[in-house]
Amino acid sequence: MGEKKAVVLLSGGLDSTTVMAIARSEGYEIYGLSFRYGQRHALELEAARRVAKALGAKEHLVMDIDLAKIGGSALTGDIEVPKGRDEGEMKREIPVTYVPARNTIFLSHALAWAEVLEASDIFIGVNAVDYSGYPDCRPQYIEAFERMANLATKAGVEGRTRVKIRTPLINMTKADIIREGIELGIDYGMTHSCYDPSPEGMPCGRCDSCLLRKKGFREAGITDPVTLSR
Amino acid sequence: MGEKKAVVLLSGGLDSTTVMAIARSEGYEIYGLSFRYGQRHALELEAARRVAKALGAKEHLVMDIDLAKIGGSALTGDIEVPKGRDEGEMKREIPVTYVPARNTIFLSHALAWAEVLEASDIFIGVNAVDYSGYPDCRPQYIEAFERMANLATKAGVEGRTRVKIRTPLINMTKADIIREGIELGIDYGMTHSCYDPSPEGMPCGRCDSCLLRKKGFREAGITDPVTLSR
Repeated sequence: MGEKKAVVLLSGGLDSTTVMAIARSEGYEIYGLSFRYGQRHALELEAARRVAKALGAKEHLVMDIDLAKIGGSALTGDIEVPKGRDEGEMKREIPVTYVPARNTIFLSHALAWAEVLEASDIFIGVNAVDYSGYPDCRPQYIEAFERMANLATKAGVEGRTRVKIRTPLINMTKADIIREGIELGIDYGMTHSCYDPSPEGMPCGRCDSCLLRKKGFREAGITDPVTLSR
Repeated sequence: MGEKKAVVLLSGGLDSTTVMAIARSEGYEIYGLSFRYGQRHALELEAARRVAKALGAKEHLVMDIDLAKIGGSALTGDIEVPKGRDEGEMKREIPVTYVPARNTIFLSHALAWAEVLEASDIFIGVNAVDYSGYPDCRPQYIEAFERMANLATKAGVEGRTRVKIRTPLINMTKADIIREGIELGIDYGMTHSCYDPSPEGMPCGRCDSCLLRKKGFREAGITDPVTLSR
């Protein structure tokens, strides 16, 4: 058997990077899983590669899935990324940056890989506090996915490994997440969060993701190594 | 609003073709969804295109997902497709043609598309009788997926459309399925079932899929237009 294994969904952003560091600190052998999904921001994938390498992932797999074909989101299509929304607005409605069923699609691939690797845990950086209004970041969704996953697989039928969906950030604020990551030695300079970066790769500073990141560093009292602001 | 819409998972085989005909007979506007997933048998996709056209699907979307990268199956990798297994063997163990988490990945994409289309139903041709031993064909799995799906989506959160996972074949024998399809006017000559066809596209006649199909036509007392045998 050897080491215990975990598949970690890795976008290259602040949350998934912290999650990977947490999984490593718990002694898992790490298998990072990222997606090229027709998103505007291929910069995420460069960040994911840097992070997987820096955190010593055993493998880093990048799957191609063309969610743009399905449409319905500012992150895969032509809809504009909203800027300058306040927290009230973020919480009131599900934003156009929501990608239909994205976490379900990502977790399904993670489940397939976990089954092949005989990994016992799938880590995902969802967050129900500063969560920007996505339905598939809520605890009841994650529980339902885990239940389904344990009926979906060969291992489940044969009563072997049960797979656990691990969401260590789910009840943390962005500031908590950043403090935890710093404690685990993460250099957040290698991460990328912006939904709509400049052609040179600089964060826009005004999309939901940039605003939540900014607020997190400010509340943690730490300087963001990417923007050099706090 | 207009017509009620359904996403139908379509492999181009006998089961999914019958499911599409059933959805049509219930008055749905049909959106066929197929996958190019690194499978050996691209012939399936040609069959799926013929079927979608013949049954008047409003759209037919083919998504690329490279399950071969994840591995673990005779249908995507280098493992040999087993031949000449009897029914006892098929039921006793999950075969190497099992693709890890395949139905979960397929249904996840269907869920994303259903959300964008505002479709109320997703049809899938799983079968728990002549089912060849796959865990993700069982009713309890389908129920768990549906439950998860209704927590995953924007519509679920806002209390609008609930999505239903429809499995009209789940308790039918292969012979029942074929009789039903014939009644609905399906020409099964346009379908493709074999896991391991010859380079010319002829079914091998000995893989699980060919054997179940053969048994079905025999029990229904109908000649298979593909092999001209019953």
